[in-house]
Amino acid sequence: MTQNFKPSIDINVLYRIRNGPLKDYQSDIDEFQKLIADNRIKYNEMFDVDMKTQKRLTNDTVKEICKLGKMQVQLLKDDPKKMLAYLYALFAQIEFSAIAKIVIHFQLFGGTILEVGTDYHHQKYFNDINNFNIVGGFAMTEMGHGSNVRQIETTSTYDLTTKEFVINSPSLSSTKFWIGNVSMFGTHVVLFTKLIFQGQDKGVHVIIVPLRDPVTMEVYKGIQLGDCGHKVGWNGIDNAWIRFTNYRVPRENLLNRFATITEDGQYLTNISSPNKLFQITISQLVFGRLLYIFGPTIFLAIGLKTAIRYAFSRRQFGEKGKPEELIIDYPTHNRVLLPMLATNMVFEFSRNWIIDNLQESSRSDEKREEYHSIVSGVKAMVCEFTIQSVSKLRVFCGGNGVSSYNYFGAMRNDLDVFQTAEGDGAVLYQQLSKFLLSEYKKWYKKQGMTGYIMKEVQTFLTTSNPIHTHYRSMPYLLSNEFHHHAFLFRFEKTRSIVIDHLNQCKGKGLSFLQSWNASLIQVVDLAKTYTHLFILENAQRTIQKVTDPITRHVLNDIVRLYALYNIEQDVGFYRNWNYLSSGKALAISEAVGELCNTLKPYALSILDSHKFHEDSLNIPLAKKDLDYVKHMADRVGIPYSSL
Amino acid sequence: MTQNFKPSIDINVLYRIRNGPLKDYQSDIDEFQKLIADNRIKYNEMFDVDMKTQKRLTNDTVKEICKLGKMQVQLLKDDPKKMLAYLYALFAQIEFSAIAKIVIHFQLFGGTILEVGTDYHHQKYFNDINNFNIVGGFAMTEMGHGSNVRQIETTSTYDLTTKEFVINSPSLSSTKFWIGNVSMFGTHVVLFTKLIFQGQDKGVHVIIVPLRDPVTMEVYKGIQLGDCGHKVGWNGIDNAWIRFTNYRVPRENLLNRFATITEDGQYLTNISSPNKLFQITISQLVFGRLLYIFGPTIFLAIGLKTAIRYAFSRRQFGEKGKPEELIIDYPTHNRVLLPMLATNMVFEFSRNWIIDNLQESSRSDEKREEYHSIVSGVKAMVCEFTIQSVSKLRVFCGGNGVSSYNYFGAMRNDLDVFQTAEGDGAVLYQQLSKFLLSEYKKWYKKQGMTGYIMKEVQTFLTTSNPIHTHYRSMPYLLSNEFHHHAFLFRFEKTRSIVIDHLNQCKGKGLSFLQSWNASLIQVVDLAKTYTHLFILENAQRTIQKVTDPITRHVLNDIVRLYALYNIEQDVGFYRNWNYLSSGKALAISEAVGELCNTLKPYALSILDSHKFHEDSLNIPLAKKDLDYVKHMADRVGIPYSSL
Ligand SMILES: Cc1cc2nc3c(=O)[nH]c(=O)nc-3n(C[C@H](O)[C@H](O)[C@H](O)COP(=O)(O)OP(=O)(O)OC[C@H]3O[C@@H](n4cnc5c(N)ncnc54)[C@H](O)[C@@H]3O)c2cc1C
Ligand SMILES: Cc1cc2nc3c(=O)[nH]c(=O)nc-3n(C[C@H](O)[C@H](O)[C@H](O)COP(=O)(O)OP(=O)(O)OC[C@H]3O[C@@H](n4cnc5c(N)ncnc54)[C@H](O)[C@@H]3O)c2cc1C
Repeated sequence: MTQNFKPSIDINVLYRIRNGPLKDYQSDIDEFQKLIADNRIKYNEMFDVDMKTQKRLTNDTVKEICKLGKMQVQLLKDDPKKMLAYLYALFAQIEFSAIAKIVIHFQLFGGTILEVGTDYHHQKYFNDINNFNIVGGFAMTEMGHGSNVRQIETTSTYDLTTKEFVINSPSLSSTKFWIGNVSMFGTHVVLFTKLIFQGQDKGVHVIIVPLRDPVTMEVYKGIQLGDCGHKVGWNGIDNAWIRFTNYRVPRENLLNRFATITEDGQYLTNISSPNKLFQITISQLVFGRLLYIFGPTIFLAIGLKTAIRYAFSRRQFGEKGKPEELIIDYPTHNRVLLPMLATNMVFEFSRNWIIDNLQESSRSDEKREEYHSIVSGVKAMVCEFTIQSVSKLRVFCGGNGVSSYNYFGAMRNDLDVFQTAEGDGAVLYQQLSKFLLSEYKKWYKKQGMTGYIMKEVQTFLTTSNPIHTHYRSMPYLLSNEFHHHAFLFRFEKTRSIVIDHLNQCKGKGLSFLQSWNASLIQVVDLAKTYTHLFILENAQRTIQKVTDPITRHVLNDIVRLYALYNIEQDVGFYRNWNYLSSGKALAISEAVGELCNTLKPYALSILDSHKFHEDSLNIPLAKKDLDYVKHMADRVGIPYSSL
Repeated sequence: MTQNFKPSIDINVLYRIRNGPLKDYQSDIDEFQKLIADNRIKYNEMFDVDMKTQKRLTNDTVKEICKLGKMQVQLLKDDPKKMLAYLYALFAQIEFSAIAKIVIHFQLFGGTILEVGTDYHHQKYFNDINNFNIVGGFAMTEMGHGSNVRQIETTSTYDLTTKEFVINSPSLSSTKFWIGNVSMFGTHVVLFTKLIFQGQDKGVHVIIVPLRDPVTMEVYKGIQLGDCGHKVGWNGIDNAWIRFTNYRVPRENLLNRFATITEDGQYLTNISSPNKLFQITISQLVFGRLLYIFGPTIFLAIGLKTAIRYAFSRRQFGEKGKPEELIIDYPTHNRVLLPMLATNMVFEFSRNWIIDNLQESSRSDEKREEYHSIVSGVKAMVCEFTIQSVSKLRVFCGGNGVSSYNYFGAMRNDLDVFQTAEGDGAVLYQQLSKFLLSEYKKWYKKQGMTGYIMKEVQTFLTTSNPIHTHYRSMPYLLSNEFHHHAFLFRFEKTRSIVIDHLNQCKGKGLSFLQSWNASLIQVVDLAKTYTHLFILENAQRTIQKVTDPITRHVLNDIVRLYALYNIEQDVGFYRNWNYLSSGKALAISEAVGELCNTLKPYALSILDSHKFHEDSLNIPLAKKDLDYVKHMADRVGIPYSSL
């Protein structure tokens, strides 16, 4: 396909496509990075540093960053892309724990005050947040409850006489746990707590709780807290457990945008139920989930740069008398690396869509719901794929992959938290599927049909289309049309499987929740197939807008590779539902191999279009000159000047 | 299937089956463990310890273990099961780096002297090795060569006049790298080096090289060495780079069982070629690869115990007014955990076969070759499966999985080295496939057939057997007969695919190596399908010997689950080659789900039959009382006595 093009690609063009939504912010990125460099704020390598020191160094870095005056809570609302541009800039220059600390402080703590608080809170706290005069945490999780926040046990009982909340941790399992920025440095948290008002449980509310005297750093009476101990990753973050005993905070500390208590002791809200209130409260935090897509795509790009550059320089085994083979030329290598590179790029395109639609998404309830559902699916998929991929990339670098300096270990350990926090995959996928099924139900009702088993749709799905089943000329197999149809078929078929399964369970007398849980495998599949469909459609749309012909051509192959590789991985499904003949299934595997070969010559320049990290991370295997032996030697101090 | 049995199983019976080959050594295990405990040799928790201290603590532990007088190089030959029993005992009581250090010292260093050296070396070194008076390393890998040892560049040029070897590192890439036990403590290594004799390259030989004065610990002149720096795992091991400049060692230091230099300056060997000599030298090290199966199966058992016990205690979400659901009851959990438990157990059975056949395997060249090939495949598969599984188990424990105390991080980081050292998967699988194809060629020739494309076999393979394709009553789907046939079909079909592919490449004018490399995906598949077949056959054989009816019944379900889950994972293959109809493929998925449900009630007692680590590792989520909240609280110091 690409024989007519020379294996070179304009990396600036590609850079702009990969970072599309931030293109108007390039000068902000550059300026911020220069400021950081001018102020000598450096990347702290934490490989052999005890955890207390890590936390201190991380905190110092964040303090210095805040001093630069660029990071501002308000940006989250006024110009979220600028906030992202700054975070993007930081990714290249400071260690990951410091970024996480900034996100907890500005986005989780500050963002909650911004979104759930009112003017009073904004006036009172934003300045101190921006200057890092106070250090904020986000206290939602408890020992007993993580994913299921609605069941948290911490109580805040309103005392009408003193106009205060009295906070308590009634059981061991109600202990707040994992609360970042708190065990050493935190002065405040936004506390997720049940509000008890005149003996009534009003559901989950959020209250600003001061923890320590900001000058003496002494923890206030009525609060006990301590560190959660050593972690697989994120050891620069001071995660804490916290317990409250009759700890009092004033009425004004309730973040009262959606529900309030008046001075004269009335509980007021426009929201119909505590459940609804909870949903609205939580939905303000979508920006955080976006960051959990942002981070992994950057990490994976770094890992790919490392492993692919190494694969283009490392030689092992070969024919007698000839140079040994480059390991990139082993199909066991390139047949994995190139699909992974392709997947990383289409993930970036989805991330870009999510960034571009962030503000738009808050225009209506429907839009918000759809947007949140897509973000959930993409977040779950990106995190899971990335962590598995980083492990594979590690192995592809052999022993050198085990050296901390090549960064796979640190990435994997930090990524582990991404996968769990802000919603675990199994839970997020369920949210997406719920949305998909309720949308379907709506549409379905509009069509005026009755009953729940959709004979028509079923028939469409089970009648295999002979063109799709057998036609297997290469051009057709490579066409966007075929890929889209295959992804769409998989999604719709899976939807009908889920509905069938739910109905069967219902037929056996199970409750809705029992039926749902019994169908979880299918439910999760539904969300996955939809997420893949979304990613593909978005990638195809992205490419249509590319004007530079070579770039467009290469990106087209990238998207095709993602699509075909994905179909290949799921070939059992397609064969089981007679969507593909066996001959076509085998032809698809061949096409994947050919696309890998076609794209291989472009791989290095694609990597170059990811411009970050070369200096700060100083990864020996990832250097542009491909001289890994020399760079590893430099890293561990092997003398070689005499050679 | 198992409705008639109560969900309880005799854990002692099961323990003996899982640890079959060591059953006559239980008293050795017990005695050694008591000795360790009596001498107060403790597990060193290394979560927040700098790497120098880790190395020192590790070395101290090994010194104390050696003082107990049980570990002896000679056991590797005289009673290898006793050696394994001791290592097994150690696994439960000391940290992993210390075990790795013991293995490097006794097995890689000592074992090489045992197997490649002669009486002179045994007399001279064994005592000092057993007492840890000298500390040994294994210096094979160089910066430029890991998997392809044959191309190492370090030279040892024999000086006829002084009867010495003159050792040099001629290039930067010839620097020895990753050599364990060396950067801080090593006094000697067995050095893999090209032997240059009278201007001729005689290929790879092994020489004992003293590095440091054992008293002053000063590194000898002519040697430069240093630490390889921080690693993803194994930081208790002092891995080193080493460079030699005209460093001299006496003639006697050549390990000369297979090739020698006489006093009067003749190079003598019975081995036909340097290549053959290399193979024989390397093949002595199979015991090491066995340990790389041993370790991961234990790690996975620990991880499963942690995640499954947690899943039987953690509740999250549920119906209003009822207790929340146990997460083990979510199909997304149990549909992964139970097949993983089953796979871990059939891996153990293979490990047991490998242990039981270790001594027998050295009886003849053929036996040795077959044995080594199987060990290669099992090692590659166990390591890859285990590291992926540990990552999944981590996620299944949510945030608590990120706590270092629950041990997933440490296991994953240590396992990473397992995957790479002693042969990377991609390389080991190729070795197995080479063996399988050459065996096939031999058989094929014996049948008196000519040509290389085997029409008959092909026909057998492509004619799908209607019974196998369509018959899908549950009993048949669950039968050992069906599973075995499916695994065998997959192996034989893959073999014919590989041969076809190689022939096609040959037809296009590629050399053998080019053809081989172009077929790598298929070649690796062949080794995998064979390894699965071996594992299944061995598991089925193992169970036939079980007499206790409940145990036998449960184990039968375990093996079935492994088989069906494996077929389900590879359903695309079976469908593509018309081995399964789509209806049957779907029925298999259902059967997997049912088996998971059947086995779930037995899961806890299966875990109990893995008796180790409860105390030494002190994993909060893995405690038998299932009270994870309390144990996490204890670990991080949350006060709860007043609650
Ligand atoms: C390093 C770190 C930092 C953190 N920082 C903060 C912080 O600053 N503030 C804060 O409030 N929290 C924080 N957390 C907590 C984090 O957000 C939670 O760990 C996360 O919400 C998951 O909850 P959990 O750990 O209780 O897991 P659980 O919800 O108990 O989940 C355990 C397992 O069960 C599965 N599961 C649960 N429900 C279902 C279901 N319905 N269906 C199928 N499967 C299910 C999950 O997928 C998971 O595999 C942090 C955690 C870590 C590790
Ligand atoms: C912590 C640690 C401790 C170690 N301890 C020791 C020690 O004590 N003594 C010692 O001698 N060594 C030691 N090693 C080295 C280890 O044994 C090597 O890393 C291992 O042999 C792999 O070699 P390599 O790193 O050079 O990888 P390479 O051989 O360069 O492999 C790199 C990648 O290329 C792939 N590849 C290579 N050849 C092929 C092929 N033909 N087909 C397909 N793919 C291929 C591999 O699968 C791998 O993914 C240690 C390593 C580590 C990390």
